[in-house]
Amino acid sequence: MQKRTIFSVQDAVKKVMDYSKTGEIEIVSIEESDGRFLAEDLIADHPVPPFDRSPYDGFAIRAEDSKLASSENPLQFEVIDEIGAGSVSEKKVGSRQAIRIMTGAQIPDGSDAVVMLELTSSITKNGQTFMSIKRAYKQGDNISFKGEDTKKGTVLVKKGMFINPGMIALLATFGYSKVSVAKKPVVGLIATGSELLEVDERLVPGKIRNSNSYMIQSQLKRSGAEPLYLGKLSDDFDQCFSAVEAALKKVDLLITTGGVSVGDYDFLPAIYEKLGANVLFNKIGMRPGSVTTVAEKNGKLLFGLSGNPSACYVGFELLVRPVVRTYLFSEQPHLFKTTAQLKSDFPKANPFTRFVRGSLVFKEGNLFAAPVGLDKSNVVTSLAGTNILIVLPGGTRGYQAGMNVDVILLEDQAGSVWPWQEYSKS
Amino acid sequence: MQKRTIFSVQDAVKKVMDYSKTGEIEIVSIEESDGRFLAEDLIADHPVPPFDRSPYDGFAIRAEDSKLASSENPLQFEVIDEIGAGSVSEKKVGSRQAIRIMTGAQIPDGSDAVVMLELTSSITKNGQTFMSIKRAYKQGDNISFKGEDTKKGTVLVKKGMFINPGMIALLATFGYSKVSVAKKPVVGLIATGSELLEVDERLVPGKIRNSNSYMIQSQLKRSGAEPLYLGKLSDDFDQCFSAVEAALKKVDLLITTGGVSVGDYDFLPAIYEKLGANVLFNKIGMRPGSVTTVAEKNGKLLFGLSGNPSACYVGFELLVRPVVRTYLFSEQPHLFKTTAQLKSDFPKANPFTRFVRGSLVFKEGNLFAAPVGLDKSNVVTSLAGTNILIVLPGGTRGYQAGMNVDVILLEDQAGSVWPWQEYSKS
Repeated sequence: MQKRTIFSVQDAVKKVMDYSKTGEIEIVSIEESDGRFLAEDLIADHPVPPFDRSPYDGFAIRAEDSKLASSENPLQFEVIDEIGAGSVSEKKVGSRQAIRIMTGAQIPDGSDAVVMLELTSSITKNGQTFMSIKRAYKQGDNISFKGEDTKKGTVLVKKGMFINPGMIALLATFGYSKVSVAKKPVVGLIATGSELLEVDERLVPGKIRNSNSYMIQSQLKRSGAEPLYLGKLSDDFDQCFSAVEAALKKVDLLITTGGVSVGDYDFLPAIYEKLGANVLFNKIGMRPGSVTTVAEKNGKLLFGLSGNPSACYVGFELLVRPVVRTYLFSEQPHLFKTTAQLKSDFPKANPFTRFVRGSLVFKEGNLFAAPVGLDKSNVVTSLAGTNILIVLPGGTRGYQAGMNVDVILLEDQAGSVWPWQEYSKS
Repeated sequence: MQKRTIFSVQDAVKKVMDYSKTGEIEIVSIEESDGRFLAEDLIADHPVPPFDRSPYDGFAIRAEDSKLASSENPLQFEVIDEIGAGSVSEKKVGSRQAIRIMTGAQIPDGSDAVVMLELTSSITKNGQTFMSIKRAYKQGDNISFKGEDTKKGTVLVKKGMFINPGMIALLATFGYSKVSVAKKPVVGLIATGSELLEVDERLVPGKIRNSNSYMIQSQLKRSGAEPLYLGKLSDDFDQCFSAVEAALKKVDLLITTGGVSVGDYDFLPAIYEKLGANVLFNKIGMRPGSVTTVAEKNGKLLFGLSGNPSACYVGFELLVRPVVRTYLFSEQPHLFKTTAQLKSDFPKANPFTRFVRGSLVFKEGNLFAAPVGLDKSNVVTSLAGTNILIVLPGGTRGYQAGMNVDVILLEDQAGSVWPWQEYSKS
């Protein structure tokens, strides 16, 4: 039986990241950029606001003319023009004059304050409109000044960020009808295992349906990659070897599921050897997923994820996702880690660091980590409700409800630069 | 000038929800179901595990035969068969016999415990393999029992849930090669305002680029709807009326942006009147977005969102999203609300309930709400970093850093049944 050196989670991720690299840029329309990742910094092409403008419907006046206005002494102004949003007045506001102005319109020459429409009353005498006010205004009242939000040339968003609705609004505002986004890395996927049935096949003794392939494709899409499913193979060495060798030529990364244990049908180690690939590690001190194996051939990463669904899921999020996000120009490619209070006891000690599927519970400003379902590594049903992984460092004692533990957020886009530490035995 | 009755946020949302309804079902392949919403409960078509199986590579034995095994007294077993995952042994394990078993394989007849491969040693004598163990096992050791995770017929996920990678794994496991998902509601979108430029147009005085249309399309996609962008119109009554009337015939919901203020170019109220639509409200006691107007015509909702980007954004998330999610069968269609500690002072009182854009900060198990950028309602740049809305109820006093406030999570899929309460003046 083959001897395996156990890598810590931190060291395993570090090894993988040594071979990660940024990808290529492609130019798409702003509509198509939705849900992609920025490949270049987003820069303000103009100040915001681009000119002094009115945030309200109302009247532009000279503040000094309003000095004496009060409830007892309403002051009347001659309305000399009216400008809609998008129009500019040709006229200049003079003494005791006003220009009717719509939300967003440019402040006309001569004026230096805006009175909200609701605080005025208007009358028309001989075809001339007058409006009156009952209080004084200061210079600059109700004016949004040019550049007060953003100076021209400001870097508004760094490359590598996920393009969400707010970002789309920014891109439109600053004239990005075409957007530089990161090209999606093509990630090949091969499932191995003679026990695997197709999803539409009837269940028979000894067999299970191939869920990992669909799950990983979905995880790949969530991470920002383009999955290329290359099929399901039986436990046959030659067939597996040919498939892996052919796949490597057409993908940026390759994932296989299954075949990495120490069982007699676990061919991946031998396939890596025959390929001449450099095996980075084949054992990680974690549960589930301890047999996760990663190799590298001419700078291309080959991820040998465990065939068991939970181990496969965790292995993907910890090892594959940061490589995909780096390819997408993220400087925070790893999942975000924070602290929460454990909701359940884990009395049994485990020498390996455990990643327990859980859901994050928000309660009065505090965070709790609730494990979902049983945490046997072959249980798939708890994956659907999972939005965190609870990290229980390996050691000689268990964990009690109420303890603070690290949790890793699975559905977060912000990410982190480096969430890992040495989870040494306690 | 028209008088408007101010609705509370709670009452406005309630009014809208009175006209929300569930949508239709469509059947798609499991691959296509990714990122959609379940239209029927997901039910286990078989128990999990489907048979007694081994969670490890190892040997299946009769526990009683191991009773006397110890380091000092290793016991030897005759290996009578070998089964890969997916195969079933024809043989029955007898006294001091063992069958080599792979991860996931069915426990063979006669055996009632599994010994992990790592804890055995093997020798071959005259072509017959024997393995030996150094400790005793109990009945059931290292066996995953049929149905111990999930009974057949269990409802695993309720309809209306977002289909994420874990859910895809579940669907595959339970044989859903075709999945009933909610049909996406088609939501028409018309932008109004003569001040609007196309994104690729050069900025000129008085004009701004049309960012709302792109932003709302992205928000619609995030909420699960299918946007149908019907173009940008000038502030011309007849043109706007015809466009709205025509649009209503081909969409499930209609959104317009702009034209809802009290300005002279704000035509939406008159359009609703000419349409014979029932205006549910035209003023909400909130900032931004107080002029948000919603009408209903023959049961179809018309959302008149403010033309200002932040008000538009907030109006969408509070009013349109729950209608879309209800259409998608969700029983928790509203955004999720929780509590966090305010990071900044808001010394100025406001009679209206404010929704301040912010980002959620996690720190040692506690949640903080950090406002992003300035919160002028015409500021678009802060929208990109926003993942929460901080709720500051209207009243006669301001808010100080450290106070607990409600926050609404914008990028959360779980949602809530009803997050609103009467935000009365304090």
